Amino acid sequence: MDLTFGQIVLSEFLGTGMLVLLGCGVVANVVLPKNKGFGGGWLLISVGWGLAVFSGVYVAAESGAHINPAVTFGLAAEGTTAWADVPAYLTGEFAGAIAGAAVVFLAYKKQFDAGEEPDTKLAVFSTGPEVRSYGWNVVTEVVGTFVLVFVVLSFGPHPIDLGPLAVGLLVLVIGTSLGGPTGYAINPARDLGPRIAHALLPIPGKGPNDWAYAWVPVVGPIIGGILAGLAGGAVYG
Amino acid sequence: MDLTFGQIVLSEFLGTGMLVLLGCGVVANVVLPKNKGFGGGWLLISVGWGLAVFSGVYVAAESGAHINPAVTFGLAAEGTTAWADVPAYLTGEFAGAIAGAAVVFLAYKKQFDAGEEPDTKLAVFSTGPEVRSYGWNVVTEVVGTFVLVFVVLSFGPHPIDLGPLAVGLLVLVIGTSLGGPTGYAINPARDLGPRIAHALLPIPGKGPNDWAYAWVPVVGPIIGGILAGLAGGAVYG
Amino acid sequence: MDLTFGQIVLSEFLGTGMLVLLGCGVVANVVLPKNKGFGGGWLLISVGWGLAVFSGVYVAAESGAHINPAVTFGLAAEGTTAWADVPAYLTGEFAGAIAGAAVVFLAYKKQFDAGEEPDTKLAVFSTGPEVRSYGWNVVTEVVGTFVLVFVVLSFGPHPIDLGPLAVGLLVLVIGTSLGGPTGYAINPARDLGPRIAHALLPIPGKGPNDWAYAWVPVVGPIIGGILAGLAGGAVYG
Amino acid sequence: MDLTFGQIVLSEFLGTGMLVLLGCGVVANVVLPKNKGFGGGWLLISVGWGLAVFSGVYVAAESGAHINPAVTFGLAAEGTTAWADVPAYLTGEFAGAIAGAAVVFLAYKKQFDAGEEPDTKLAVFSTGPEVRSYGWNVVTEVVGTFVLVFVVLSFGPHPIDLGPLAVGLLVLVIGTSLGGPTGYAINPARDLGPRIAHALLPIPGKGPNDWAYAWVPVVGPIIGGILAGLAGGAVYG
Repeated sequence: MDLTFGQIVLSEFLGTGMLVLLGCGVVANVVLPKNKGFGGGWLLISVGWGLAVFSGVYVAAESGAHINPAVTFGLAAEGTTAWADVPAYLTGEFAGAIAGAAVVFLAYKKQFDAGEEPDTKLAVFSTGPEVRSYGWNVVTEVVGTFVLVFVVLSFGPHPIDLGPLAVGLLVLVIGTSLGGPTGYAINPARDLGPRIAHALLPIPGKGPNDWAYAWVPVVGPIIGGILAGLAGGAVYG
Repeated sequence: MDLTFGQIVLSEFLGTGMLVLLGCGVVANVVLPKNKGFGGGWLLISVGWGLAVFSGVYVAAESGAHINPAVTFGLAAEGTTAWADVPAYLTGEFAGAIAGAAVVFLAYKKQFDAGEEPDTKLAVFSTGPEVRSYGWNVVTEVVGTFVLVFVVLSFGPHPIDLGPLAVGLLVLVIGTSLGGPTGYAINPARDLGPRIAHALLPIPGKGPNDWAYAWVPVVGPIIGGILAGLAGGAVYG
Repeated sequence: MDLTFGQIVLSEFLGTGMLVLLGCGVVANVVLPKNKGFGGGWLLISVGWGLAVFSGVYVAAESGAHINPAVTFGLAAEGTTAWADVPAYLTGEFAGAIAGAAVVFLAYKKQFDAGEEPDTKLAVFSTGPEVRSYGWNVVTEVVGTFVLVFVVLSFGPHPIDLGPLAVGLLVLVIGTSLGGPTGYAINPARDLGPRIAHALLPIPGKGPNDWAYAWVPVVGPIIGGILAGLAGGAVYG
Repeated sequence: MDLTFGQIVLSEFLGTGMLVLLGCGVVANVVLPKNKGFGGGWLLISVGWGLAVFSGVYVAAESGAHINPAVTFGLAAEGTTAWADVPAYLTGEFAGAIAGAAVVFLAYKKQFDAGEEPDTKLAVFSTGPEVRSYGWNVVTEVVGTFVLVFVVLSFGPHPIDLGPLAVGLLVLVIGTSLGGPTGYAINPARDLGPRIAHALLPIPGKGPNDWAYAWVPVVGPIIGGILAGLAGGAVYG
């Protein structure tokens, strides 16, 4: 894949935007009152996020469908992705995540108007731990992201090689099985992008952005992705 | 695909009929009392609608499996489908949707007899918003339909090229993630066809057809489909 | 496929046995107390039955994986299956269904010992309507079985051609969408076979076998299968 | 597949570790308080275990993806796997299961700190029956494992030939349909490995390891696997 900077940015922008639109969308549906899916439970959320990734992988197929900085760092550590291409991937991923979160706000505008709980509104955008403990929260995010990147590498270098359905099911099972403690960001763009959107958007009745936690779902996934890239390269490379 | 008017109409009639039979069927199962699936929740409904589309795509494979006027308009805007074929597609889609809804009435006849709530009976056939706000309801339908048509175009010109399973999973995730505010019509035939059936059928204890809302799930999806056709054509064409 | 009588019987016996073991098994898990899945809901049941068929199709691949007399009659009406082979298919299907139900009894022996409600014990084996109305119950079973056989024929003559996953998902959606009123037998062997097993097995505290209803899930599916065979043959033949 | 002892051990270690990490992980998410998935129900658990196996099969593809001593014994009885390779498979499987369980403890560390119920903590690691009756519990495990190995053999000699998705869906349906009475170990490594981990790890407030039951999910699956290997070899060999 010899793509220009702009081609990578556009592909990853669209794929990550699709991922965040559908992923934060299912959270909005489940946690905001006056929705058909209100109170729908964790399996509904896990299915939504899994198929959000499934959809994003199709859209970003041209660039290998990283749609996740942890994957980009993992594939760079493993050697598949050139470090020179990393800035293009990151640019597309974070910009797409912010844009996708903004569209969630539009699609659920009246539900944001109706709800009253600031914490719930932030939860639509960004993850937060059930038990706040920065060190252990990082560990949980490291483990979840390691699984994602390591299983991808067991099959082929890029997520698109594993295929949209398998990547989606993999994210689904990470949600069911490792999402309990922290809500499984496992993707720095998925968490930081929407958090920035939450800070910028005119959301009625919104509260703080919980910047104190914001580094956890960035640092944890990057560590997990790099460790998986190195381990996967050693085992499957 | 060089098909006659009649071939397109028949294929889309059967596919859209199957889609509406299984799609409105799952709503009947969940919202009408005296059903095994009564109160089964949003994931059950989303899975049912997703696999309803999956089934309809098989049945309408010969004509590319639009089974949705928003897809037809999107593919016409993008250039895959000739505008001259659009009337045949629309004819099959709307006729099939009305017929499929009538079969739902037959399959759930005793449940319609038993139920007492007119709003619930209409909900089996047509969508309605959780918060009525025509402008924002249109926005939600535009976003959902854009996702459907744009992801289809990321892979190939017709839904059948993406394949029945992928189209079904795509509709499933649109339900989980963007279905909260309006019930995701994302298909004018799926909403208007059954609404017409509701108006015509001898449903015991039925109430009004909510014609005031009927334009939203027609106009929103058509706008979303055309926007996605233009955007998808520019990015993936 | 030129198979002997014995080859057809063995293949369909194993496939239908697997189907009923896993299908009646999920009902046992959900409706009998002292089970991990007790009270698990309709989606759990629909997923279990769908993947029960998925498993049975693998096992019976050699004979085309009818594992359902309604499919056999439908394919005979459509012309794919020779009428001379029908007795072999029916023999394997009904014998397998009885055997599969007996194994469910063994796997859930202590749960049958513990439960007290005779109706619930029968529900593990055979279907029953939410609103008893023989004529309309037949209609519901006709519609469900028509969907099964018609979608199979849209792709190829035998269920194995559609593939185990697609057949399983098709049965899953018939459950979500048309299973509400009668519990979707859509397969005479699946209902009558276990009902015979219920009559014969030494189930503690069992009640009557509801023979008055037993003809509905036999006649309805056979009518639906034959209608779909004729319609599918005309459209897709 | 001509692999060295070390290649088999490594592949099965990684695959079984992934399986147990994601499988015991979903139980932790559902049964330990202060988790997003707490109280999520049996379908959530069954989906998590099914896709845990799906993920493990990818990771262990090189060695055929047994990731289960019952599969190893079944394929040895059937003739596909040389008895001389069995020790390598068992070594990788049990070591991987212990390691995977240890990582679950790390990912859910704060939830183990917070919970108070020793039985619940053990349930994250190992199965236990709803009604304790060693003989019938063995029967249930025999039936579940027979289904797993027999369906695998209907398609090809190794789980990897059936494919990660089909094996995952097969384990999902065994969970929905045969998991009620005993929690479906159907894999001696999956149960004994985490039980050893439970005994060794410094889990706060942990209780006994229920060694009295520990032989059931070892002996039952081995019997079921060997029976299925012999039956499958006779029918499909």
